[in-house]
Amino acid sequence: MSKEITPRSDDYSQWYIDLVRKAGLADYSAVKGCMVIKPYGFGIWENMRDALDRMFKDTGHVNAYFPLFIPKSFLSKEAAHIEGFAKECAVVTHYRLKNAEDGSGVIVDPDAKLEEELIVRPTSETIIWNTYRDWIQSYRDLPLLINQWANVVRWEMRTRLFLRTAEFLWQEGHTAHASKEEAEQEARTMLDVYADFAENWMALPVIKGVKTENERFAGAVDTYCIEALMQDGWALQAGTSHFLGQNFAKAFDVQFSTKDNTLEYVWATSWGVSTRLMGALVMAHSDDEGLVLPPRLAPTQVVIVPIPKPLPELEDIAQKIASDLKGLGIRVKIDTDDQNRPGYKFAEYEKLGIPVRLGLGKRDLENGTIEVARRDTKEKSSVAIDGIAQHIAGLLDEIQQNMFNRALAFRNEHTTSVDTWDEFVHVLETKRGFISAHWDGTSETETAIKEQTKATIRCIPLDAVEEDGACILTGKPSKRRVLFARAY
Amino acid sequence: MSKEITPRSDDYSQWYIDLVRKAGLADYSAVKGCMVIKPYGFGIWENMRDALDRMFKDTGHVNAYFPLFIPKSFLSKEAAHIEGFAKECAVVTHYRLKNAEDGSGVIVDPDAKLEEELIVRPTSETIIWNTYRDWIQSYRDLPLLINQWANVVRWEMRTRLFLRTAEFLWQEGHTAHASKEEAEQEARTMLDVYADFAENWMALPVIKGVKTENERFAGAVDTYCIEALMQDGWALQAGTSHFLGQNFAKAFDVQFSTKDNTLEYVWATSWGVSTRLMGALVMAHSDDEGLVLPPRLAPTQVVIVPIPKPLPELEDIAQKIASDLKGLGIRVKIDTDDQNRPGYKFAEYEKLGIPVRLGLGKRDLENGTIEVARRDTKEKSSVAIDGIAQHIAGLLDEIQQNMFNRALAFRNEHTTSVDTWDEFVHVLETKRGFISAHWDGTSETETAIKEQTKATIRCIPLDAVEEDGACILTGKPSKRRVLFARAY
Repeated sequence: MSKEITPRSDDYSQWYIDLVRKAGLADYSAVKGCMVIKPYGFGIWENMRDALDRMFKDTGHVNAYFPLFIPKSFLSKEAAHIEGFAKECAVVTHYRLKNAEDGSGVIVDPDAKLEEELIVRPTSETIIWNTYRDWIQSYRDLPLLINQWANVVRWEMRTRLFLRTAEFLWQEGHTAHASKEEAEQEARTMLDVYADFAENWMALPVIKGVKTENERFAGAVDTYCIEALMQDGWALQAGTSHFLGQNFAKAFDVQFSTKDNTLEYVWATSWGVSTRLMGALVMAHSDDEGLVLPPRLAPTQVVIVPIPKPLPELEDIAQKIASDLKGLGIRVKIDTDDQNRPGYKFAEYEKLGIPVRLGLGKRDLENGTIEVARRDTKEKSSVAIDGIAQHIAGLLDEIQQNMFNRALAFRNEHTTSVDTWDEFVHVLETKRGFISAHWDGTSETETAIKEQTKATIRCIPLDAVEEDGACILTGKPSKRRVLFARAY
Repeated sequence: MSKEITPRSDDYSQWYIDLVRKAGLADYSAVKGCMVIKPYGFGIWENMRDALDRMFKDTGHVNAYFPLFIPKSFLSKEAAHIEGFAKECAVVTHYRLKNAEDGSGVIVDPDAKLEEELIVRPTSETIIWNTYRDWIQSYRDLPLLINQWANVVRWEMRTRLFLRTAEFLWQEGHTAHASKEEAEQEARTMLDVYADFAENWMALPVIKGVKTENERFAGAVDTYCIEALMQDGWALQAGTSHFLGQNFAKAFDVQFSTKDNTLEYVWATSWGVSTRLMGALVMAHSDDEGLVLPPRLAPTQVVIVPIPKPLPELEDIAQKIASDLKGLGIRVKIDTDDQNRPGYKFAEYEKLGIPVRLGLGKRDLENGTIEVARRDTKEKSSVAIDGIAQHIAGLLDEIQQNMFNRALAFRNEHTTSVDTWDEFVHVLETKRGFISAHWDGTSETETAIKEQTKATIRCIPLDAVEEDGACILTGKPSKRRVLFARAY
């Protein structure tokens, strides 16, 4: 176990922060609430971004870029939207600094006050729909399927690296449609894209569902979400896709002429995932030794470590194996450090979560074998060098699948159906995880449950079956179970 | 000629703006000074970014991400730096909005005033060097070779799409080194990378040089630059690479222990290119019909247009050609629109600057040929369908090279050596372009020339030869010619 990293059993929160910092993913910055994403962490994020970007393009979307700043009056145009974001807005009020006349230093120039304050975007629906008004006249201009990769700012007092920071990176899709049905379909399609990404790239099983009114995005008609379970039994919302109805079209007067030559308001969706996914990735899979990265997202998938240290006679074979692996599209690195001992290096690579480590020793070579260590199970085996590249390619797939299966088994073990309040509270306090229970469908009950237990309704699962029951708190009738959990 | 686009000969500035807007590259936004980069323009920028990113990684750099906000006190720590940027800073002073008590709407909450104002980054040297203090202790931590892709804000009163906007996108490299020599070498290496990119991707010949003190980056010891010439004879700075000496290390107290166990300040570089390159791309190559894009950056390199309109019997052959082109890594699109006439479509594709257009008519098919139209020369030819994909691959290379050659010939024709003030003024007023002339080496003379003529010293070319001469303004002795021009 790494001495730098607090064990999960001692303090799960501290384990997370230690790991994020010590594995070189991110760190706090001098600016309150803002993080620095370090090179190794950014490398993982680049892999996430590239995979998602391809999936967006494969589903017909294009990228664009809209301004960082939003006039205060725009943000105020959709009532629920401003209500949701007003309390966390960074506000630009001036556009110039100057030297203080008393020589005390640089001050904000009071003569350079903006007529209207600008908000640093917390999300871009308002500035984008104000732009769409110029872009959309006719049904021929629809659909508009646009995404942007951007930084956004939501002022937070209590922050945690990746999970909750004042500034974060994300993508936000903003689409415009001629019909309600098409927009609803788009929101569901993008939810499927997110679920596909979470499960097949992050090895993270997710529940697809719809949010209750309390948890809905400010300005949405419906918020769809994917919800994942972390190793401490807390849930994490990993992505949301909103059907916005005509709310923003009405707020910004975006109408189109239909084929029948009538004017109608445009239908909208928006959808986003953020660097929060980095937090989910860490918390779902990693252990007390460090990161455990799914091979498809690992910046380095295989590291070759000459033992006891790099020697000329090992170099050729290491290069040959690396070259064969690269030929199969595998990201590989050869350890050329001759200062540190193998034990130290192994611990470092475990901390970094590199999926496969190859130990290349002289004795192995004589036998025509190599030591293969996998990060997920920590198993080691001796494998013939002949055909090693193909073996590793298969092993990386196996690790990817195993990580998903393990996370799925954990989630299944930690998803409990309960029918009484006592059971509900007991499971929350002991086993944790997702709790499937009946709820009477009112915001008041949801709020009361949250106040008493800190558990929220994560979603109404899309595959929930109709089932008569009684609300765990009020005993009132319910038609289906919803999913509760304490959540990040 | 496109009716939507003002001819260059009528009004070059208006031609530029018309083109940027009508070809779907960018548009003004509701936020003063900020632009919207539209999907087609963003597609070109993505190709630029991806090519540059690969070049940075191939030269050993990694990406990271630093905060958008910079505490005012950080920006003030390097004297020349704050002097250079103070007048164009967007300042965040508050972090919350609230409903006005009189019901008049949403206002900035006066209780949510920041203790220290935050500046939206105009560039990131200060926040990054404040971070590097924690990352660098020993020579073993060096070099640090980090880049970030980010948005930055420099408040501008007079803006022009891509060329000068309050917010723009860029990359900024920030490297840290153990020796002066290594840092100087890095600054020169990255200048070479920029020149390589400009010439081989943008088809834009550039002069590599070093800036005079007047034009140097605020906080740099030396600013290297690449300078390009636009079709109107004005110069455009296309990228800069700064040797920062120990200025930021001293301002932020970043020292490292050397191999000899002494403490030294770290040596630094920074270097950047921005969405300004989009403006350079347009102004260097395009014409009155629209964009002319170099094939390596064009989002679509080839469009196949069935004539007179898409027909089932043409579809198979179009698909076959497209498939063959894709097999060669060529970005191809088939026009499936059956509403508009070929003449309209041709004009549209010319406006978009698609390098090669294939006209697929029934008569051509009978002859086993296809019409190939190239955007750069507007030549059309009839080419055998058999082997067409290989032909197109070669043609795209030829177009790329031809565009570079044409721009180079233009620059050569518009680079004039002058030895007298009268000649200097005459060339500036008539032929324009780069003017190679002697200068006495003082800031006063440079300023006087700028005030009288609006021409600035673009750079002292790196390949300038020693040559005795007399300053065109003062007649004082000079050791080498420098390059003057009016510049964007």
